[in-house]
Amino acid sequence: MDRKDLARDLAAIVGPDHVRVDDGALAAYARDATPLFHSLPQAVVLPGSTEEVAAVLKYATERAVPVVPRGAGSNLCAGTVPLTGGIVLALTRLDRILEVSSEELLARVQTGVTTARLADAAAQAGLLYAPDPGSRTVSTVGGNVATCAGGLRGLKYGVTRNYVLGLEAVLPTGEIIRTGGRLWKDVAGYDLTRLLTGSEGTLAVITEVTVALLPAPAETGTGVAYFPSLADASRAVADVIASGIVPATLEFLDRKCISAVEEFAGLGLRQDAGALLLFGDDGDARAVATNLGRIQEVCDRAGALEVTLAEDVARADALLAARRCSLPALSRLGSVTILEDATVPRHRLAEMVDRIDEIAARHDLTIATFGHAGDGNLHPTCVLDPDDHEAVDRAHAAFAEIFAAAIALDGTITGEHGVGAAKLPYLADRLGADQVALLRRIKNAFDPAGILNPGKLGS
Amino acid sequence: MDRKDLARDLAAIVGPDHVRVDDGALAAYARDATPLFHSLPQAVVLPGSTEEVAAVLKYATERAVPVVPRGAGSNLCAGTVPLTGGIVLALTRLDRILEVSSEELLARVQTGVTTARLADAAAQAGLLYAPDPGSRTVSTVGGNVATCAGGLRGLKYGVTRNYVLGLEAVLPTGEIIRTGGRLWKDVAGYDLTRLLTGSEGTLAVITEVTVALLPAPAETGTGVAYFPSLADASRAVADVIASGIVPATLEFLDRKCISAVEEFAGLGLRQDAGALLLFGDDGDARAVATNLGRIQEVCDRAGALEVTLAEDVARADALLAARRCSLPALSRLGSVTILEDATVPRHRLAEMVDRIDEIAARHDLTIATFGHAGDGNLHPTCVLDPDDHEAVDRAHAAFAEIFAAAIALDGTITGEHGVGAAKLPYLADRLGADQVALLRRIKNAFDPAGILNPGKLGS
Ligand SMILES: Cc1cc2nc3c(=O)[nH]c(=O)nc-3n(C[C@H](O)[C@H](O)[C@H](O)COP(=O)(O)OP(=O)(O)OC[C@H]3O[C@@H](n4cnc5c(N)ncnc54)[C@H](O)[C@@H]3O)c2cc1C
Ligand SMILES: Cc1cc2nc3c(=O)[nH]c(=O)nc-3n(C[C@H](O)[C@H](O)[C@H](O)COP(=O)(O)OP(=O)(O)OC[C@H]3O[C@@H](n4cnc5c(N)ncnc54)[C@H](O)[C@@H]3O)c2cc1C
Repeated sequence: MDRKDLARDLAAIVGPDHVRVDDGALAAYARDATPLFHSLPQAVVLPGSTEEVAAVLKYATERAVPVVPRGAGSNLCAGTVPLTGGIVLALTRLDRILEVSSEELLARVQTGVTTARLADAAAQAGLLYAPDPGSRTVSTVGGNVATCAGGLRGLKYGVTRNYVLGLEAVLPTGEIIRTGGRLWKDVAGYDLTRLLTGSEGTLAVITEVTVALLPAPAETGTGVAYFPSLADASRAVADVIASGIVPATLEFLDRKCISAVEEFAGLGLRQDAGALLLFGDDGDARAVATNLGRIQEVCDRAGALEVTLAEDVARADALLAARRCSLPALSRLGSVTILEDATVPRHRLAEMVDRIDEIAARHDLTIATFGHAGDGNLHPTCVLDPDDHEAVDRAHAAFAEIFAAAIALDGTITGEHGVGAAKLPYLADRLGADQVALLRRIKNAFDPAGILNPGKLGS
Repeated sequence: MDRKDLARDLAAIVGPDHVRVDDGALAAYARDATPLFHSLPQAVVLPGSTEEVAAVLKYATERAVPVVPRGAGSNLCAGTVPLTGGIVLALTRLDRILEVSSEELLARVQTGVTTARLADAAAQAGLLYAPDPGSRTVSTVGGNVATCAGGLRGLKYGVTRNYVLGLEAVLPTGEIIRTGGRLWKDVAGYDLTRLLTGSEGTLAVITEVTVALLPAPAETGTGVAYFPSLADASRAVADVIASGIVPATLEFLDRKCISAVEEFAGLGLRQDAGALLLFGDDGDARAVATNLGRIQEVCDRAGALEVTLAEDVARADALLAARRCSLPALSRLGSVTILEDATVPRHRLAEMVDRIDEIAARHDLTIATFGHAGDGNLHPTCVLDPDDHEAVDRAHAAFAEIFAAAIALDGTITGEHGVGAAKLPYLADRLGADQVALLRRIKNAFDPAGILNPGKLGS
């Protein structure tokens, strides 16, 4: 479609101030946090209400113009790259916190609200919004729901899906629907709330979210254990679970990550270790103390070099920061980092990291691995120079092998980051052709004109 | 289709011993636990493997014969009544527990296994299968998943959905798919695991389920509080939550239920109270003691007539039995009980029960109410004589008003029992016409020939 006509029509819906067609804006929305993927949209639209979203979508379906819903663009699967041009629908103006209720233990927000703002509003009411992706200060609640984001507390608390009670969403054809609501139990109809959670902007545009909150835990505790090898750390993780404890946090860094983080942040991490395990729990003060003590014992028995509990909040925050800054720390080793998300049953973590190391060595690549040990969710991260085309090709070949290895270990190609465009080529390996065909039929039930986020999940 | 031909063709798939076409068998499968609904199938088939299920479905799609999947038939929404005849596909022969892993905290079972058998197998491994519907000794895991069953521990532990990790399912067209798996985090593809959970046998036949287990709690405690009125009990529930406690169990009985249960079971319940609140928690022994103590205080402050903690397991079991036998106890008051499942936000519980009482009085009906106070999930139960056609008509009119009242209070027409045939007429009131149309398109994406459980959800 002609760019000028498009701009005029969109301006008639959202007002001229909220349509961008200048080169600078288009370039800014050509990428997300995924390296190596970019493609220019024809226009960027920032609607100010659900009704405006509906009008844009209706218009786009009528004209068969692609629409790519976008929150903060912090995803790592090229989920918001407008592969076939069209409209980027940025939801950042829908940023109102509509209510936080300590009586009902819930919050209702527009989807452009950031995760951290929602969490802060909950905390002010003495409540906890449990999902906490590493990107929480920038990522939007809409993006979290659309990717079913995980985070550092997933082991005990689960992922975004477990907290979504209800949604307001706009179908690509323009109808506004409300799924679920303010209830913990509601089985009236197919579970569209959960179907839209994780649908990566390919089935509907989510405009409002009602989430469950928890009473804020009385106490939080954190500790760190160093192990000679990741195999030892992995055994400790299995032993912790087998001992009947499901702590809030069980994160790991491999040797390469430890030294990158230490170089980056100077936190005094021990560099002679093969793996670092960060553990944490929250709840009743005595229960936290008991659990951390028992985890300490289990780690000692599993051959830890050293186990220490953070003596104060500052030290606990520093340790969590060590885990959170793994990606930026690794970024400094090369001009680009390709961060992946393979996931395996937790007791196969060490086996998987061994395979990753072997694959990296064979392809002559630097791949460091960190992640959510308790969930078996690994983030193997390849550090390279994007202008070295041969290295990029080798990285693609290596990741294809990593995904195949994860599947062979009863695992998956993505634990929390999503399929997007980046992992679409591997989806049939995981799900089989019959299931992929079914996903396409479901996509078609929502989006008959195929305008919503083409080239991604459901394509 | 001719009954003999059908029997012959089905016998060729599952063997002659596993097809029933005699009048006795057909009559037995014409009903489920829902009163007033019945309709004869043409044949009952009991497949012995997933492959046999696939062959039956492929055959049925080719011949356009309706197929009604059935577990124990304990549902309360006419979900397994073969409204348009055809085949009842009874999954009770698929009754193998395939594995229970304390290392991975999961179990994998065929769908004909009963809830209680799964829970017992988990308990033997020191683990907890958290969902516990009142029907657990008879209901199947397949039926639990297909209805997303709740139960008495829903407040703290959630419902069946929160525990389903992966499914094996057969599409109506005969393809076998595997969704999810052994992972807590897996976002490869639309969330078919959750979409099939609660799909009431209208999208696919579930043949195998992998569920998450928890370490068994160290301690369990139970208490009972009597209140002058349900409004007082409801205030106590709100105060408990507001005080930062989310106990495992918070169940209520109204005055009519208390006296029916006392007459039925003679447990020594206090009969001068307007409402009984049953509360329970589990976990670390000290935390349980603290929580129960605080709930006791909160109830006292909210005006309880009496609050007692069960001094031993026998007394706790007796109290739980009181709640579990509400339905049989009420059944004795008339020849039929119509048990409903309206749900409202928990702080509107008393308001909703007031409306129910007003509606019952106006229609000259006996409706007693019990349910899951913590979830706002009410079970208003109408006791009547099914041969009194006028009373039956009045009951239908009353329930239509009860559903409308629940919706008006931000609630829903069914919290855990499902839509089936019984609640289908009210679904559009809850979801709106656009969403119902979308459900039909999703149904069509799975079941193009419309053979699976016609006349139910998705029709
Ligand atoms: C440093 C860093 C750390 C991270 N840590 C984690 C982590 O711990 N756990 C984790 O799961 N992820 C993590 N991520 C990935 C990413 O932040 C999450 O996926 C996040 O949920 C994306 O939110 P967003 O607002 O940026 O969404 P975007 O990137 O804008 O969009 C993501 C997807 O959602 C769709 N979408 C966005 N908004 C809507 C809407 N309102 N309606 C419909 N579709 C919509 C888009 O089309 C796209 O497919 C991390 C990323 C970075 C850069
Ligand atoms: C006394 C009593 C107490 C109850 N308490 C509770 C309670 O506390 N919480 C609660 O949620 N419910 C409760 N129920 C309702 C009922 O027991 C549950 O809905 C239970 O989950 C049904 O299991 P079932 O095996 O009997 O399924 P069925 O009744 O046989 O089937 C239920 C639905 O699931 C479908 N289905 C069954 N198996 C499969 C399969 N393998 N694949 C695909 N679809 C399938 C059927 O087509 C039907 O739509 C209670 C019922 C009674 C009679």
